[in-house]
Amino acid sequence: MERLKNQMEFILEVDKLKKITRQSYITDGSRKENDTEHSWHLALMCLLLSEYSNEDIDVLKVMSMVLIHDIVEIDAGDTYAYDDAGNETKRERELKAAERIFGILPEDQRCSMMDLWEEFETGETREAKFAAVLDRVQPILLNHTTGGRAWREHEVREEQILKRNERTSEGSEKLWEFCRGMISENVARGSIIAGNGGQAGN
Amino acid sequence: MERLKNQMEFILEVDKLKKITRQSYITDGSRKENDTEHSWHLALMCLLLSEYSNEDIDVLKVMSMVLIHDIVEIDAGDTYAYDDAGNETKRERELKAAERIFGILPEDQRCSMMDLWEEFETGETREAKFAAVLDRVQPILLNHTTGGRAWREHEVREEQILKRNERTSEGSEKLWEFCRGMISENVARGSIIAGNGGQAGN
Repeated sequence: MERLKNQMEFILEVDKLKKITRQSYITDGSRKENDTEHSWHLALMCLLLSEYSNEDIDVLKVMSMVLIHDIVEIDAGDTYAYDDAGNETKRERELKAAERIFGILPEDQRCSMMDLWEEFETGETREAKFAAVLDRVQPILLNHTTGGRAWREHEVREEQILKRNERTSEGSEKLWEFCRGMISENVARGSIIAGNGGQAGN
Repeated sequence: MERLKNQMEFILEVDKLKKITRQSYITDGSRKENDTEHSWHLALMCLLLSEYSNEDIDVLKVMSMVLIHDIVEIDAGDTYAYDDAGNETKRERELKAAERIFGILPEDQRCSMMDLWEEFETGETREAKFAAVLDRVQPILLNHTTGGRAWREHEVREEQILKRNERTSEGSEKLWEFCRGMISENVARGSIIAGNGGQAGN
């Protein structure tokens, strides 16, 4: 029963992810979504959109990856995509979190979950690339639907979004094309600041 | 692009599931959980606990099932497990909801999602049985951890829980044994009313 007890302890520990708030608003605009809602959404998108992956993928692996990819944020918090200072320390904070949280599991599952999380983070396999596509597309979809509110609140520039998505087409050309349309529409509307917004380049 | 547009419309429509509140409290007791948080939790449990299924299962299928099993509640609402009146009309309300919501998808996916949902509802396959186990175990785990609050608020009787779980051991004897321990503990504490609470039998 020791093994099952450790698994249940982990399952209860990760319940805390329901309290980690992201920057995207849910479609009715009433509040921001949390990490578990986001992860559920990605897993469902994986089920329905895997046909758009550039390469054949192991759907179960992508689904597992997106279900666990944000668990580290229980300790490390959600770092907004366009928070430069936060992103500098992100890796260190998240690695420490992964070791603590996945460390609750029995050894074999600790290893497989750490490997899955690292594979997602490294972004080199076909499954990691498609998981990253889903992780990029979902907030664009929500932001577009809620009138670009999160983008406006953070004064996000087109250049930042394009940089963040420079590898999205590697996972899915079709989904990136779909997103590109939404981004252009929001630049035209003024929800996303065009180009680099007149900032000095880097 | 018509196919992708319909898929995206569905993905946005089901965002509404983030607003459907259940009766279980999240572990810190601060609020009740919603259907997407619950579904994420079940999918993750499926990933970690599939070894306890009585029979070999297709993990991707169970995961897909639990991700979509509550989508009908967008229209039909959450019917509390021990709401007898609500449960009388549940099937009719949920079928109508499934037809409308899954009907947004392209025909092939509408069919596969309807089949998956019906398989879960019917509960006869090994995957549906294990999905049902997860759907029973997760609220017991949350209720146990939050001092039995949801059980106390609804004055739930041991007899009702045992009746609701009369087939749980068909999916997993080990997980049912684990739950049986938590139920007994909560009966002893008075969070669950012992036996039938002196009500006339039926």
